[in-house]
Amino acid sequence: MKIIIAGGDGFCGWPTALYFSQKGHEVAIVDNLIRREWDKELGTQSLTPIASMEDRLSVWQAQSGKSIKFYLGDLQDYDFVEHVFQDFEPEAFVHYAEQRSAPYSMIDREHAVFTQVNNVVGNLNVLFAMKKITPDCHLIKLGTMGEYGTPNIDIEEGYIRIEHNGREDVLPYPKQPFSFYHLSKVHDSHNIMFACKAWGIRATDLNQGVVYGLWTDETKLDERLYNRIDFDGVFGTALNRFCIQAAVGHDLTVYGKGGQTRAFLDIRDTLQCVELAALNPADAGEFRVFNQFTEQFSVLELAQRVQAVAKQMGIEANIAHLQNPRVEKEEHYYHAAHTKLLDLGLKPHLLSDELIQGLIETASRYQDRVSRDVIRPSATWR
Amino acid sequence: MKIIIAGGDGFCGWPTALYFSQKGHEVAIVDNLIRREWDKELGTQSLTPIASMEDRLSVWQAQSGKSIKFYLGDLQDYDFVEHVFQDFEPEAFVHYAEQRSAPYSMIDREHAVFTQVNNVVGNLNVLFAMKKITPDCHLIKLGTMGEYGTPNIDIEEGYIRIEHNGREDVLPYPKQPFSFYHLSKVHDSHNIMFACKAWGIRATDLNQGVVYGLWTDETKLDERLYNRIDFDGVFGTALNRFCIQAAVGHDLTVYGKGGQTRAFLDIRDTLQCVELAALNPADAGEFRVFNQFTEQFSVLELAQRVQAVAKQMGIEANIAHLQNPRVEKEEHYYHAAHTKLLDLGLKPHLLSDELIQGLIETASRYQDRVSRDVIRPSATWR
Repeated sequence: MKIIIAGGDGFCGWPTALYFSQKGHEVAIVDNLIRREWDKELGTQSLTPIASMEDRLSVWQAQSGKSIKFYLGDLQDYDFVEHVFQDFEPEAFVHYAEQRSAPYSMIDREHAVFTQVNNVVGNLNVLFAMKKITPDCHLIKLGTMGEYGTPNIDIEEGYIRIEHNGREDVLPYPKQPFSFYHLSKVHDSHNIMFACKAWGIRATDLNQGVVYGLWTDETKLDERLYNRIDFDGVFGTALNRFCIQAAVGHDLTVYGKGGQTRAFLDIRDTLQCVELAALNPADAGEFRVFNQFTEQFSVLELAQRVQAVAKQMGIEANIAHLQNPRVEKEEHYYHAAHTKLLDLGLKPHLLSDELIQGLIETASRYQDRVSRDVIRPSATWR
Repeated sequence: MKIIIAGGDGFCGWPTALYFSQKGHEVAIVDNLIRREWDKELGTQSLTPIASMEDRLSVWQAQSGKSIKFYLGDLQDYDFVEHVFQDFEPEAFVHYAEQRSAPYSMIDREHAVFTQVNNVVGNLNVLFAMKKITPDCHLIKLGTMGEYGTPNIDIEEGYIRIEHNGREDVLPYPKQPFSFYHLSKVHDSHNIMFACKAWGIRATDLNQGVVYGLWTDETKLDERLYNRIDFDGVFGTALNRFCIQAAVGHDLTVYGKGGQTRAFLDIRDTLQCVELAALNPADAGEFRVFNQFTEQFSVLELAQRVQAVAKQMGIEANIAHLQNPRVEKEEHYYHAAHTKLLDLGLKPHLLSDELIQGLIETASRYQDRVSRDVIRPSATWR
């Protein structure tokens, strides 16, 4: 399959590109490398050293004998997007190329506006180019479980059957996103749903949970193939951040009570899920929604789990309940459906102590790269 | 009350500004006058001659003895927005200042992107300026009934109680917008809902139906106070467009079967509704949603109604069923709640033959201003 991985320099995109390449697909990465610039802006870096895209791709070719094409550019630049579609003629377009941090979107007005314009316009450009050049191409769009918020009823996969005043319909599941970033994904979802209906685009919206883990079969082959992993308060996410905090002797930073329950998955399952979506494309005109996660945990549960594994390793990790910088419920009902990818054959990697131990060991190995100044949350929702 | 009418040069904004001024409120208009540029772009003009903003305001001062302040600028320019809030310190901000035509948003990629960026960024800027400078100010935002689409269940006002798997919650009503324009309003609604929750902003989202009519007590006082009214296939809307078509001997252009049912209201009721919202503000942190319309009609019903009134006036108007340029259901269930504004005291002006006759007469008077080349729909959804 000819498949584009947009955002292929990022945490999910890079291992996805290698995974599809390894499987024998013809892969192209589209990226403007802006994720590296955000590190500079925030005074942080990946825990793991990451090679330049040029080095990444040449090492991959040497290791695997397979080449990955690279298009350097910004999805906000429509001429660039159209060129990519014309030149590569993809059968599937995996769209990770968005600003994906909720705290980054909440830094200030400029970051909120940047996040929404970057994400919404980039996605619109992809839809228009797809309509014009490869109308049969399958858009595999990364959404987020955070689009749903924390309703007091079960979360379904994209749609819900509603009975009301003696009639019924299946309607898009109501959205209550958590941040300007999560809002941008809701905007994207609505735009894509419309493009499917109006133009017959085929699309799968993957409402992904929080991704943890680091290593995949491909990225661990050579240090120059290593994936990035974030420890800072802006891009670092629960679990990965806790493991790094434990390794460097920092408190595990739980925001408020920690009863916030979210959906999680192993990065290896991200690759599996995207592959399952690609191999089983949506129908023409179908806006298909999968909830892409394997387990749900409260933030405090995860901190305690990391604390316990650290203890077995001889590390005393303290859990600190910071004043919550976010506006969110700290105790709430949470139950989200996630059967559609299982039905397609997903074999989950459930969270294991071994994975946590491995992350702590990796973090210990690279602890000199961790700046403690950027670990605590800096952006506030208020 | 100190009240800003953003978009105060437009079809709804101008009469709203005069109405509040007449009632003794301190009014400021914010507008970049871009609506006049879109006329030039599309090769059309208002049926009625419209004076410059300078003339409009000086005639109003001479007629009423009341002055309206005018801020010339674009809501996408945050420094301008912040200046307006600091200088005027509004208690209410009525936000009409968006690109409001569905066909305009569907012309091509550039117009789709323009519409979403213009509307979403302008609205974000208003929210951020309000938070910073006048956190108690009441945002009265014009949404559209088109956010809901045409679900097979009753449409409620913003929220719906859902029972599901033995639990229940009141959630935002699911949205299925019709065009990139309608999508921009859905994006705005989600952004405002979040700002209310995170920052305690008070907001009322007025999901308005299609507005018909032209005259208000204030705009008819002097030709230089006249409101604009559109006949072209891009900005002209059902009913008003049909009346003008009847007057100039053009077919009444019904798209497809004409069974598309929509919500409608008289422009005088727009003013009443905005006034009721302003005098009864939302609570701090409340995202209040009103469905702002008085009656629902199918497009064909309206064409037939205009045809009948025209016949009484001695005009034979033919109804032409054009190939539908839009992707929409032409026969569907439609029943939308609209009690909240009635509960606040709205006294509807229901559609009358007299109003239709008056519009046809006005159109006859200005028929030389109607270019027949721009009446048919030019933008397609496909």
